[in-house]
Amino acid sequence: MNKQLTVTIRVKYGKEKVAFGTLATQIGYDGGDIIGIDVISSTKTHHIRDITVNVADPEHGQMIGEQLSKLEGVVVIHISDQTFLLHVGGKIEMKPKHPVTSRQMLSKVYTPGVARICTAIADDPDKAHSLTIKRNTVAVVSDGTAVLGLGDIGPAAAMPVMEGKAMLFKQLAGVDAFPICLDTKDPDEIVRIVKAMAPTFGGINLEDISSPRCFEIEARLKQELDIPVFHDDQHGTAVVILAGLINALKVCGKRLEDIKVVVNGIGSAGIACTKMLIKAGVRHVVGVDRAGAICRGIQYDNPQWNMYAQITNPDNLSGSLSDVIAGADVFIGVSAPGVLKIEDIKKMAVDPIVFAMANPIPEIDPDVAAPFVRVMATGRSDYPNQINNVHCFPGIFRGALDCRATDITEEMKLAAAHAIASVVTEDQLSETYIIPNVFNEQVAKSVRTAVIKAAHQSGVARKMPLDMQSSEEASTEESASFEEQLEIVWN
Amino acid sequence: MNKQLTVTIRVKYGKEKVAFGTLATQIGYDGGDIIGIDVISSTKTHHIRDITVNVADPEHGQMIGEQLSKLEGVVVIHISDQTFLLHVGGKIEMKPKHPVTSRQMLSKVYTPGVARICTAIADDPDKAHSLTIKRNTVAVVSDGTAVLGLGDIGPAAAMPVMEGKAMLFKQLAGVDAFPICLDTKDPDEIVRIVKAMAPTFGGINLEDISSPRCFEIEARLKQELDIPVFHDDQHGTAVVILAGLINALKVCGKRLEDIKVVVNGIGSAGIACTKMLIKAGVRHVVGVDRAGAICRGIQYDNPQWNMYAQITNPDNLSGSLSDVIAGADVFIGVSAPGVLKIEDIKKMAVDPIVFAMANPIPEIDPDVAAPFVRVMATGRSDYPNQINNVHCFPGIFRGALDCRATDITEEMKLAAAHAIASVVTEDQLSETYIIPNVFNEQVAKSVRTAVIKAAHQSGVARKMPLDMQSSEEASTEESASFEEQLEIVWN
Repeated sequence: MNKQLTVTIRVKYGKEKVAFGTLATQIGYDGGDIIGIDVISSTKTHHIRDITVNVADPEHGQMIGEQLSKLEGVVVIHISDQTFLLHVGGKIEMKPKHPVTSRQMLSKVYTPGVARICTAIADDPDKAHSLTIKRNTVAVVSDGTAVLGLGDIGPAAAMPVMEGKAMLFKQLAGVDAFPICLDTKDPDEIVRIVKAMAPTFGGINLEDISSPRCFEIEARLKQELDIPVFHDDQHGTAVVILAGLINALKVCGKRLEDIKVVVNGIGSAGIACTKMLIKAGVRHVVGVDRAGAICRGIQYDNPQWNMYAQITNPDNLSGSLSDVIAGADVFIGVSAPGVLKIEDIKKMAVDPIVFAMANPIPEIDPDVAAPFVRVMATGRSDYPNQINNVHCFPGIFRGALDCRATDITEEMKLAAAHAIASVVTEDQLSETYIIPNVFNEQVAKSVRTAVIKAAHQSGVARKMPLDMQSSEEASTEESASFEEQLEIVWN
Repeated sequence: MNKQLTVTIRVKYGKEKVAFGTLATQIGYDGGDIIGIDVISSTKTHHIRDITVNVADPEHGQMIGEQLSKLEGVVVIHISDQTFLLHVGGKIEMKPKHPVTSRQMLSKVYTPGVARICTAIADDPDKAHSLTIKRNTVAVVSDGTAVLGLGDIGPAAAMPVMEGKAMLFKQLAGVDAFPICLDTKDPDEIVRIVKAMAPTFGGINLEDISSPRCFEIEARLKQELDIPVFHDDQHGTAVVILAGLINALKVCGKRLEDIKVVVNGIGSAGIACTKMLIKAGVRHVVGVDRAGAICRGIQYDNPQWNMYAQITNPDNLSGSLSDVIAGADVFIGVSAPGVLKIEDIKKMAVDPIVFAMANPIPEIDPDVAAPFVRVMATGRSDYPNQINNVHCFPGIFRGALDCRATDITEEMKLAAAHAIASVVTEDQLSETYIIPNVFNEQVAKSVRTAVIKAAHQSGVARKMPLDMQSSEEASTEESASFEEQLEIVWN
C-alpha cells in the first residue's frame, strides 16, 4: 500500500488506564505507519500526544482515528492532515530585507529619504532594474482555467499551485516570485492587466492558462513587453522533455537528426515540445491527437493543428497512433492515461524511448512497459527519470533576470535543455538516470549560465552579470561604475 | 547643520605614509560626522577601509571625498550613499514559509499533493481565506500619479515608496503586503485590474493616486469587492490627525463638540479628515482652499467642494484663511509650506492647536509658531508630535484581516483613531507628547483590537479571532472545528 498521506492524530488518554504501546499496536494493526510522536501536555491523570502517521488516504486516517477512539480511556481530539496544515495561511510570506526599527532607518527606506530613490528612477527609468524588486521578481500569473489535471477551477483555487511555484522559484534559484491569480478569462483583459502590472516585475511566468487562449496571451505579451514572458506549461515542459531526450539518445547511441518521434497530444505542451525538438535538430516528428496523425490535406477546426501540419510529418502519414508509431524511435505522450499499448511499443524501432508524461496516470503503466522499452520516463516521482518543469523554470528565469533579458528566445530554451542534460555526467548516465534530481543544485546554476550566454548571442540581454564578465570587461574595485559598486557591495 | 544623509567612503591608503587619524581629522574638519569604520582588506603596503559618515547632502559627501583624495597616499575608491545601498535589488523579498528540500515536501506543497488543496477551495471558495496567502496579504496599489510631494512620477518610480510601505506593514503588524504599481491612469482600467487581482489578496491599500480619480476608484472598489479597500492618503491621514487631536484637546481641556476647526487644503486628505472629524463629533469645521473658505451659495468647478460646502461651515463663513481663522480652536493644514502666519494664530481662540502637515516644509515653521501655540504637530520626525500614517495602516489592516472584514467602515476608522490616542497614557500626555512613537508596539495591537470590535459592530466582520472570543464562544481543544484546529496549530 502506497502511503502518500501524512496525518497527525491528537489523542488524550488516561495515564493509569492506557499504555502508549496499546495505541501504537492498534495503529500498526490498522495499517498506519507511525513516523513521529510529540508530547503536547500532561496532567496528573492524562497525557495529550500528537501521533503522526503515514496513511493511504483521508478515509484510512479517519478509520485509524475511529479505531483508536474505541479503546477504553482514549479520546481522539482531532485528526489533522499535514498537507492541509502546510497550507494554512498560505505557503509564502513577504519579508523586509532590512529591519525598520529606528527613525533613522525609517527615514531612509520610507519618507523622506525614499524620495531621492524615486527621483533617481523618474530621471532614469532603467534604474528601476537595480533599485526596486523588479531586479529579482517574477509574477506567476494564472486565470485558473487549466490547473494541473483539474481543469477550470478558477483563480482562488489555483492559488496553492502558484504559491508552490513561488516557493520553488526562491528555493531553487533565489528568484522572488509572486502569484497573481486573475478573475477574468478574457485574453484581451489578461494582456492589458499583465502589461499594466509590468513596472513591478522583471519577468512574467504564465501558468495553467487553457489552450488556445494561452498562445494568444503569451504571443501578445512577448511582443508588447520588454521583460521576459514564459508560459511554463508549454515551454518548461518542452525544455525538460528535450533535456531528457538528449540523454536518452546518448544511452541508445542515436542522434536527434536521425530519429522519428511520435508526439501524442497536440495541445499547448505538445506543440511547444514539437517546436523545441525541431529547433534542436529533429527532422521527423509526427503529431497525433484524437483526430489521428496531424497531416496536410485536412482542414482542422483548430488553427494550431493546421500550422502544426505544415512543420511536421514529412511523409504526411495519416491514421491512428498505432498506425504511425511503426518504426518510431521515440514516443512522447502529453495526453491521457493508458493510450499507449504494448503492441504499439512492439512496432517501434530498436531501443524504444517512451516518455509518458500524463499525470498522475501515464500513457502506459511504466511497470507494464518496462520489458519492452530501453528508456522510460514519466512525470512521476515514484519511478526513475522524472521529467518535471521544476528542472527548468527557476534557472531559466534566474538567467533571464541576471542578464536583464528582454525576452526568452528559442536559443535560450535550447541552451537550458542542453544545460539540464549536461548535469548528468557520462558515467552517471544510464537507462534509469537520464535526468538529474530536481533538488540537484547544479541544475539551476548550469541553466542560468547557459541561458545568459544564449541571451547575449540572441541579442536580448541588457547586461552581463559580474561573475560572467571576462577579465577585460570585469570591473575592478577602482573602476566600477556606481551601479556596479552597488552590486559589489550587495551580492 | 542637519546631517540627514549617510555616505560610505571607501579609501585605500599606504600603511607607512598615512595614519588613520589624519583621515578622521580631515573628515571632521570638513564637517562630516564619522559613525562607523569597517576594515575591507589589508595588504603589506595598504589598508582599504569603509568610513561611514553623516553629511548634509550628496554634494557635502562628494566634497569630503575630494578633500580626502588630496591627502598624499590616499585614494578614494568610491563613495556610496547608504540610502541608495539600502534600495539595491529592492527592499522586500518573498520567502517560502517551509523549506522545500525533499521529494516528500515537494509532493505536499506542489504536485501532486497541492491538488487536494485546490479542490478543497474549488468546493468551498471561503477556504481561500484560510488555505492561501489571501489570509494575510494586502496589495499596495498605486499608479504613481501623486507620489509623496513629487507628483506624477509614474509607476516604476513609485515602487520604492510602495516597497517601503510593505516593509512597514510586515515590521509593525505582520501583514504581508505586496506592491503593485500600475502603468495606467484610467480609473476604469484601475478598477478592473484591482477587481481581477482580488482573488490573491485579503485587502487593498490604495496609495499615491491623484485626486479626484482616487475618490472614484476607491468608491467603486469598496462597492464591488468583498475585501477591504482603503486609500491610505485619505483615511490613514484622517485617522492619525483625529488621534492627535483627541489628545491635544485633552491637553487643552476642550471637547470635540465645542471646537471650531479650520482645515486648510481641501484635497483628498482634507476632505477625508473633515469627514472623520464630523463623524467623531466636531460640529464646526470650515474648509479653506485657494478659493477661500468653502461655502454654500458658490458653484465650484470641483464637485467635491460643492459636496463639502453642504456638510461644513455652519455659519457659512466666506473669505480668506485669515478671515475665517478668527476664534478657531484648531488649525489643520494639509496644504502647502508657509501659508499660515503668526498673525493668523494670534486671531485663534485661547490655547491654539496647530497641525501643520505639509511635508517636508510645514504650513508654518514650528520654531516660529512655538511661542504662540499650545499644541503643535507636524509630519516631521525632527519635531515633537509627528503625525504619520504609519500609526494607522498596519494595525487597521491587521484588524480587518483577522476578522475577515468585507470593508473598512467609518466606525472602524474612528475606533482606530481612539485606539492610537489611547496608547498615550494620562500621565505621559503633554503639549509635546500627544501621539505615540511610530515604533511603539502597542499602537498596532490597540488599533487591531479596536478595529475588530468595530467591524463586528458595523456588521462587516466574518469571524472573530480566537484570542478575542469570549469564554462561551471560545473553542476548546476538544470542540474546535477543523478550521479552528488549523489556527490552533499554526498561530
